[in-house]
Amino acid sequence: MRSAPSWRALLTLEVKRLKYESKLLEFSKEDHKSPGYLKLNPRGKVPTLKDGDFVLYESLAIVAYLDRKYPEPPIFGTTAQETGLIWRSISETESYLVPPGAKLAGPIFFGKGLEKTDEIQEAAAAIRDELKRIDEALASSAWMVGPRLSAADIASFPLIQLLLRAASKEAAKPLNLGLLPLAQAYPSIAAWVKRVEAIPGYEKSYPPHWK
Amino acid sequence: MRSAPSWRALLTLEVKRLKYESKLLEFSKEDHKSPGYLKLNPRGKVPTLKDGDFVLYESLAIVAYLDRKYPEPPIFGTTAQETGLIWRSISETESYLVPPGAKLAGPIFFGKGLEKTDEIQEAAAAIRDELKRIDEALASSAWMVGPRLSAADIASFPLIQLLLRAASKEAAKPLNLGLLPLAQAYPSIAAWVKRVEAIPGYEKSYPPHWK
Repeated sequence: MRSAPSWRALLTLEVKRLKYESKLLEFSKEDHKSPGYLKLNPRGKVPTLKDGDFVLYESLAIVAYLDRKYPEPPIFGTTAQETGLIWRSISETESYLVPPGAKLAGPIFFGKGLEKTDEIQEAAAAIRDELKRIDEALASSAWMVGPRLSAADIASFPLIQLLLRAASKEAAKPLNLGLLPLAQAYPSIAAWVKRVEAIPGYEKSYPPHWK
Repeated sequence: MRSAPSWRALLTLEVKRLKYESKLLEFSKEDHKSPGYLKLNPRGKVPTLKDGDFVLYESLAIVAYLDRKYPEPPIFGTTAQETGLIWRSISETESYLVPPGAKLAGPIFFGKGLEKTDEIQEAAAAIRDELKRIDEALASSAWMVGPRLSAADIASFPLIQLLLRAASKEAAKPLNLGLLPLAQAYPSIAAWVKRVEAIPGYEKSYPPHWK
């Protein structure tokens, strides 16, 4: 299973130009609940990184670990202020975009809870607020923080792609989420998505089951 | 207002032995919604750090910024593995302890939603699971990750204190949360709390309205 958190790890591996072997877990086969996998990650979540004998889970931890072990190119800034603003952006993604994102994407992808339209519309409104804020920031800057791609972009990109994918589904049409077409709703995010897609190795990081 | 997130910033300032001026915002006076404060932090949350002209919010971002600017003592580990495990612990706190913590502490402190006992008991069960996991880890280690206090301790300590404070309230008694007495329920966490309380400067970081 290549989830949005897994995509963060894969993007980091590509940005750092590291060699790795990627194993796709199949959710439908409960690969993530197998005894072998639970030994690596007792929570049964993805992603999990194995680097020699060292095992690490939680996507942001993997991103931070890889940057500390393989510092080039730096993705947590080159000054304390950049580091602070990058973690601010990541925290905002985690606190204000992930929770409503789950409330929106879950029902659309799995078909459960679609009748709770009030909750879905509340989540969609919160998502639109955050995307507007991000769109405004990206209007004057190519990347989320600082002059180059950083962990702020890596943390939010897979989630934003997941939300756009959810918004494009048949089940989302009657909800009128107001997220698409992206170039019209959030033109600066649309241009940023193209910049991320142009990263060398981007194609390799793309979730294969989304193709 | 000195919330659990604010306490993270204050603990970091104390651990780094930095000089600072702390301004207490009064929630009841809506200090955090004043135009002056919203200019610093448009989300109207706490904490916000002002370091010269540089303004930063989101507690984990402030912790990361302070460590990058003032590296001694290091609180994000001295090896890539420690850095990874510290961020893993922080991510686990944010993902698995903060959400049920809010569902438990909110009703107890503000008296709203106390009748939703199913939701509260579900949150309490999730909290007990996490505290058990933390207690087991602390049985063989003085600190959450590595040989010294780190950002993993700083991120979780204020939240755990908040939960214990909630559990000690009169409104929590009928809920039988199973969190207290701490030394009996989670002896290794109890010993760790004493170690954190022994940090020089700890008293200065303590929320004044809790005294």
